[in-house]
Amino acid sequence: MYNPDLAYYQEFYSKQLLNDTIPFWFPRSYDQEYGGFLLMRDADGSLIDDDKAVWIQGRATWLLATLYNTVEQRAEWQEGAKLGYDFLVKHCFDTDGRMFFHVTRDGKPIRKRRYFFSETFAVIAMAAYAKASGDETAANRSRELFGKCIQYATVPGLLEPKFTDTRPTIGIGVPMIMINTAQQVRETIGDERCDEWISNWIRTIEQYFVKDDIRCVMEQVAPDGSIINHIDGRTLNPGHAIEGAWFILEEAKYRGNDPALINLGCRMLDYMWERGWDKEYGGIIYFRDVFNKPVQEYWQDMKFWWPQNEAIIATLLAYLMTGNEKYAEWHRMIHEYAYAHFHDAQNGEWYGYLHRNGTIAQSAKGNMFKGPFHLPRQEWYCQKILKEYLAVKSTQWMVNS
Amino acid sequence: MYNPDLAYYQEFYSKQLLNDTIPFWFPRSYDQEYGGFLLMRDADGSLIDDDKAVWIQGRATWLLATLYNTVEQRAEWQEGAKLGYDFLVKHCFDTDGRMFFHVTRDGKPIRKRRYFFSETFAVIAMAAYAKASGDETAANRSRELFGKCIQYATVPGLLEPKFTDTRPTIGIGVPMIMINTAQQVRETIGDERCDEWISNWIRTIEQYFVKDDIRCVMEQVAPDGSIINHIDGRTLNPGHAIEGAWFILEEAKYRGNDPALINLGCRMLDYMWERGWDKEYGGIIYFRDVFNKPVQEYWQDMKFWWPQNEAIIATLLAYLMTGNEKYAEWHRMIHEYAYAHFHDAQNGEWYGYLHRNGTIAQSAKGNMFKGPFHLPRQEWYCQKILKEYLAVKSTQWMVNS
Repeated sequence: MYNPDLAYYQEFYSKQLLNDTIPFWFPRSYDQEYGGFLLMRDADGSLIDDDKAVWIQGRATWLLATLYNTVEQRAEWQEGAKLGYDFLVKHCFDTDGRMFFHVTRDGKPIRKRRYFFSETFAVIAMAAYAKASGDETAANRSRELFGKCIQYATVPGLLEPKFTDTRPTIGIGVPMIMINTAQQVRETIGDERCDEWISNWIRTIEQYFVKDDIRCVMEQVAPDGSIINHIDGRTLNPGHAIEGAWFILEEAKYRGNDPALINLGCRMLDYMWERGWDKEYGGIIYFRDVFNKPVQEYWQDMKFWWPQNEAIIATLLAYLMTGNEKYAEWHRMIHEYAYAHFHDAQNGEWYGYLHRNGTIAQSAKGNMFKGPFHLPRQEWYCQKILKEYLAVKSTQWMVNS
Repeated sequence: MYNPDLAYYQEFYSKQLLNDTIPFWFPRSYDQEYGGFLLMRDADGSLIDDDKAVWIQGRATWLLATLYNTVEQRAEWQEGAKLGYDFLVKHCFDTDGRMFFHVTRDGKPIRKRRYFFSETFAVIAMAAYAKASGDETAANRSRELFGKCIQYATVPGLLEPKFTDTRPTIGIGVPMIMINTAQQVRETIGDERCDEWISNWIRTIEQYFVKDDIRCVMEQVAPDGSIINHIDGRTLNPGHAIEGAWFILEEAKYRGNDPALINLGCRMLDYMWERGWDKEYGGIIYFRDVFNKPVQEYWQDMKFWWPQNEAIIATLLAYLMTGNEKYAEWHRMIHEYAYAHFHDAQNGEWYGYLHRNGTIAQSAKGNMFKGPFHLPRQEWYCQKILKEYLAVKSTQWMVNS
């Protein structure tokens, strides 16, 4: 297999990352006064809110440290990661060891939630920062918090439940995010727990959430894996499942192109591309109902930025690992749709929220849920795997070519 | 003032209510097996979920009892209201006296929330049912629960807070809904607490939420009434404020056309019509930012059914009470937009969720948040005030005509 587009894409993602996406955020978002980052910004970069979303503080710290670790050892990125790391440590933990969700500019808590995603993003932030700085305390903090996350993910009742026990459910979000958290810890500071836990969580996803008979990846199921035939139980999140698909393909690559994992990742991608790709307007739709009934969540048919980022990664990685031209075509489709509709050529970065028909629903580049993460991670990851692939002329990459 | 359209509108709303909206829901939604109502239905009336949303169970009970009390003493409506009342009493209360938010068909709890809106809708359901049935126990239950709601609304710390104390806020939702709750209790079973509390809550709204200098009604503010210049604090909900406007106009009418209350209700309507009416596509938009910055909530520019219902009531009532032709024109505009875009002429009732441009975003007529309430209440209320107005040939209604 030789595809002349691959060199083009490699250069494209690399340039977008370094000349367009990162300069939108940095250096202007470094908060030299209080630490952390000022990330809630309108299309033109003007600040719309100086509060700090803890998820995004962690993700931005991870990004800066990862750029330093893998792209170029710029002092600015190392110092930026330190701003984020220090803010997380100083201001984002409650006295019970859990983390907040939303804090003021100077680090006073506004809101804490039942979920532990602030914690998982802090784990990867601290791990990447530990590698960038050589700070052993940061590495130990990351390992300790990773251990807590494993507990939150596996010990029932540790976290306050949102629902009663009447209709127990399990979600794909926890095993998925924990796979990626463990992968990042392993990559940066190493931890002997990672391989086994990754295997466990992949088994959980395959056993309970992947439904080959109806070609679907469920977002939540009953504890025995059965479909809960109510509105919430039927709701699918194709972009989320596709993100899970590439975490598993990445694991397949790490394990020497494990064919069973490649097969699993590609099935998940296939099923949810079929359900998520909008044949009328293009792009990945936010929610779908497994039986095509109406979905409750109001933004169900909008196009958000991040499902497109996950689909760009997953289709490219599936193509590089299998040589199946179907994935090259899907990658071309989602790439062209996304950069045509989401990218703000004037100011850099992407809009976050489009209507189903591709028009812009609102102009923010950063808010409580969007910041420097999914887009720069996609551009960083895609340029990296393409560089590796092109360097070895593809031979080690493919199973069936 | 004589407007030949008024008789047309009176007949239109009356016919829509009785021949189109109510027949979509009843009798098929009566759950003769478990009590309560099966209300989560697709456009064609097919059931998409047999769970029960406690808000909507209360609201449907209120509607059936109110139709019985004010439109026609149909045994079906009285019996339907009893199904709802019994289900609320038997299955929707937790052991601490608080109510659930979401239960299964047979009444097992799924979710309980921090808010007490399940309770406020149960208060008006029980009150209206008490009047329809003459059941004194129901009246006492309603009064007792109304007393609890007054406590929840006024005693800090009784309910678990969603946010920390770092940035205290007060919302317009509680005083607004409590005005209407008290009005309904007064109308059906009477309660000597109502007048004073209504005055208090109206004063709260005027003092803290209505900003004449910037022509705006805030959705939330700091405890001293100042605007909180962060994303959430800036977010306006025009349909909600317009609902509050007509609760206050209704109170003005009850108090013999109190001119200060008419003035307040009309100011609120004016400000939020200016901010909420979509000059490009028509209809009332869901959220706006007070300073026109991007809004966080993803569905911010969609058209939901209920803000249109509230605006139809508020503009009609403002017109009948002031004779100001501006309101007749606004009423015509919102009426024509809403019935052209939301009404499902084939199956009856309205769609709930349109894109900003008026296309249908999803087909459900009923789900966790939509059911037989805002639309039938609007049609019921509008036919009722028009009938009263036409009967007295308008003279008692107007302040300045």
